[in-house]
Amino acid sequence: MSLTRPNPRFVARANRILSSQIRRYAVPGEGTIPAAKKKYVPTEGTYPLGFSAGSAHVGVKASNTRFDDLALIASDQPCAGAAVFTTNKFQAAPVTVSRDMLKKRKGDGIRAVIVNSGCANAVTGKGGIEDAVSMGKTTDQCFYEDSNGEDDGHGSRSVVMSTGVIGQRLPIQKILDKIPTAYYNLGGSHEHWLGTAKAICTTDTFPKLVSKTFTLPSSAEEYHIAGMTKGAGMIHPNMATLLGIICTDAPVAAGPLQAALTSAITKSFNSISIDGDTSTNDTVALLANGAAGGRSITSTDSEDFQAFQKTLTEFAIDLAKLVVRDGEGATKFVTIRVTNAATYKDAHRVASTIARSPLVKTALYGKDANWGRILCATGYAEGVESVTPEETSVSFVPTDGSEELKLLVRGEPEQVDEARAAKILEAEDLEIKVQLSENKGYKEEALFWTCDFSHEYVTINGDYRT
Amino acid sequence: MSLTRPNPRFVARANRILSSQIRRYAVPGEGTIPAAKKKYVPTEGTYPLGFSAGSAHVGVKASNTRFDDLALIASDQPCAGAAVFTTNKFQAAPVTVSRDMLKKRKGDGIRAVIVNSGCANAVTGKGGIEDAVSMGKTTDQCFYEDSNGEDDGHGSRSVVMSTGVIGQRLPIQKILDKIPTAYYNLGGSHEHWLGTAKAICTTDTFPKLVSKTFTLPSSAEEYHIAGMTKGAGMIHPNMATLLGIICTDAPVAAGPLQAALTSAITKSFNSISIDGDTSTNDTVALLANGAAGGRSITSTDSEDFQAFQKTLTEFAIDLAKLVVRDGEGATKFVTIRVTNAATYKDAHRVASTIARSPLVKTALYGKDANWGRILCATGYAEGVESVTPEETSVSFVPTDGSEELKLLVRGEPEQVDEARAAKILEAEDLEIKVQLSENKGYKEEALFWTCDFSHEYVTINGDYRT
Repeated sequence: MSLTRPNPRFVARANRILSSQIRRYAVPGEGTIPAAKKKYVPTEGTYPLGFSAGSAHVGVKASNTRFDDLALIASDQPCAGAAVFTTNKFQAAPVTVSRDMLKKRKGDGIRAVIVNSGCANAVTGKGGIEDAVSMGKTTDQCFYEDSNGEDDGHGSRSVVMSTGVIGQRLPIQKILDKIPTAYYNLGGSHEHWLGTAKAICTTDTFPKLVSKTFTLPSSAEEYHIAGMTKGAGMIHPNMATLLGIICTDAPVAAGPLQAALTSAITKSFNSISIDGDTSTNDTVALLANGAAGGRSITSTDSEDFQAFQKTLTEFAIDLAKLVVRDGEGATKFVTIRVTNAATYKDAHRVASTIARSPLVKTALYGKDANWGRILCATGYAEGVESVTPEETSVSFVPTDGSEELKLLVRGEPEQVDEARAAKILEAEDLEIKVQLSENKGYKEEALFWTCDFSHEYVTINGDYRT
Repeated sequence: MSLTRPNPRFVARANRILSSQIRRYAVPGEGTIPAAKKKYVPTEGTYPLGFSAGSAHVGVKASNTRFDDLALIASDQPCAGAAVFTTNKFQAAPVTVSRDMLKKRKGDGIRAVIVNSGCANAVTGKGGIEDAVSMGKTTDQCFYEDSNGEDDGHGSRSVVMSTGVIGQRLPIQKILDKIPTAYYNLGGSHEHWLGTAKAICTTDTFPKLVSKTFTLPSSAEEYHIAGMTKGAGMIHPNMATLLGIICTDAPVAAGPLQAALTSAITKSFNSISIDGDTSTNDTVALLANGAAGGRSITSTDSEDFQAFQKTLTEFAIDLAKLVVRDGEGATKFVTIRVTNAATYKDAHRVASTIARSPLVKTALYGKDANWGRILCATGYAEGVESVTPEETSVSFVPTDGSEELKLLVRGEPEQVDEARAAKILEAEDLEIKVQLSENKGYKEEALFWTCDFSHEYVTINGDYRT
């Protein structure tokens, strides 16, 4: 993507005006995590060997005088890197720059991910590209002091991410000045990882961090995987972005690493919806440094690759679910399971359409067992061949392990126990199961996670000028 | 579409349970039209020759003890008919029955449109199909007393429509008993047309009726076109449907009539969005009886056809706009104009994506000049090739005729006069203009109409169980 050079006078004016519009919803920080969300914030973790995390306070938004807003995740050694980026045609500068970097390096020799919150560096023209490049270069400089950091002629070794307001330039010098501080603050403790996960937040009400251990069939080593994410919708004036950073000490080469990530994202970050809006900055990066040893995964054919892909997918799902837990104004966490489709794509399309229907989402908020709206959304999902009206069933599956509540069975309305429906809908968690073509032998299934639409969502995003 | 026979015991139980859930939002009737909407209800009109309209009170919903809920629109002579139906895979029984009828008749020899409100006859199995067939047959019977009404071996002459709750069977005998009353009440006055437009309403806050006169190049006759529509979203438990009925006394044969309607619907009823949900019952029917005389339009090649199509498209747009004016909880009426696209389809896709974005719609409710969200929705419109980021511009066009307010010009943020933006956003009406690829010579343009997302929308559709 190439953008014409912005007129500096206009950019300065636009920045001034846009700055004056900024209203904060809930800058995350000490003590502001809602009581109901505290259970999603880990108090300990097991982190990958050879990776460290750190943060620093820049004050990207002038109003942020306290909280760290610059995050650095680094590998001790050059490592393999992969990423999945937004499909939005208006791609932010860091998306363009990071994509080019990974391409140039063929996913090898990566050292770090550098992230600022508070400003998305999107719709910022050529100047924005230069800013993103500078962030990468200054991060590289920190590593050039190491023996492993020298320029190998393939350019930057850093993935760059930004999240926040669209249409404003970064306060780039302030950011560059604090990158060495973030580097100095690097460490491998739980506190380091959690602090860094906080620094990438914008309107999130809690930091999103997950860590796990796993093994691979061919080796005795215990491997670690850890990741953080942020994102809860978009907010005024033009907040954008879901970001994710995942690190593992398993030995995976760049090619299979990208393949595993692409597949995992489909079933995780591309299977969640808050409001159906795809931002300009969405990026999930995955680094693998092999620091835990063992035989390297160099192709997608091996048993090890299959095991790694499964672990990664489950891990990415856990991480993505936290984004839905923090959906703006959400009161419900809803799993949508679409079964008996001819293809995964069909099942995914139907699940996605239900997850995005404002009528379904407001009914969930109203605790209304409204199978008609679920059926209606199933019927208008575009480009889907697997829907057979007389074989379609809809159920609510309670999360307490009790029997499912059938609402529609093979195209016919069920006698609904309203008292039970009300009880199921009182819970925060709910699964909606839709079977598309029960008798056709179709077996594909997709899962999707979404939240409800509440008055609070409208309040947050309506952004009153009071 | 074929549905298996519903178990009558289940249906009875389901009906009993569903009935107990029904909560009304605003049953339309005398004196309940909001003051702000009164200007959209005509006090007079010019109606097509040879057509009449009438209504009757059935009490499809037991709670409706006063207001007419059965509507009949009839042509004095057998006439040409065309229709466009929902693309939802769960098609209501009247959709299946009316589609089959028009196919069997090849759009000729149509006498009437019979409509009930209060129950959508959707997801009602084989019994629902039988009910829809009965409604058509009983309507036909009224005309068999005329010399022109005899059975010609091509079956029913009536288009059947239903609107209301999904998953309930019609109180069919009560409806059949009142069809002769509606027939008896037929008349051609403004009061007859307006009363009939009221009878098809469900959650609408005002009846939607438009009438106009027009001419055709090849004749001196003055022609008339009149139509009614209903629909404002869907409401508990499972309301469904946008319906439209348009009649003209111009002489247009069935083939070109269908062609003109299909084209007009794309630019009217398929270019509006309240909440992006496509119902199971959506139907727009068009009847042309030629009662005003003149040369018949028998092909799509003639100058007369071009003129008729233009008139019909403009008329359908006027009618469709009334649906947006009555959007559930809407406080804004927003025209989205997307220009400089390579194809109409691209422009329409982008406009539709902006119109459906919850983030754009909540920002409009909040009177927030949030071009970032408009740009973001433009960038994620699926399957669109015409977007060039560095050539994209976004403006607000005030409806008072004053100059447009530029927000983004060829990819660069503009200096926004916030006071002026606030003033423009205070008005009920607003046009958002998005130019996609200004310098590429692309000239296609699409218009779309939408409303905002308000707290009231969530309240209405959350349907509190208080």
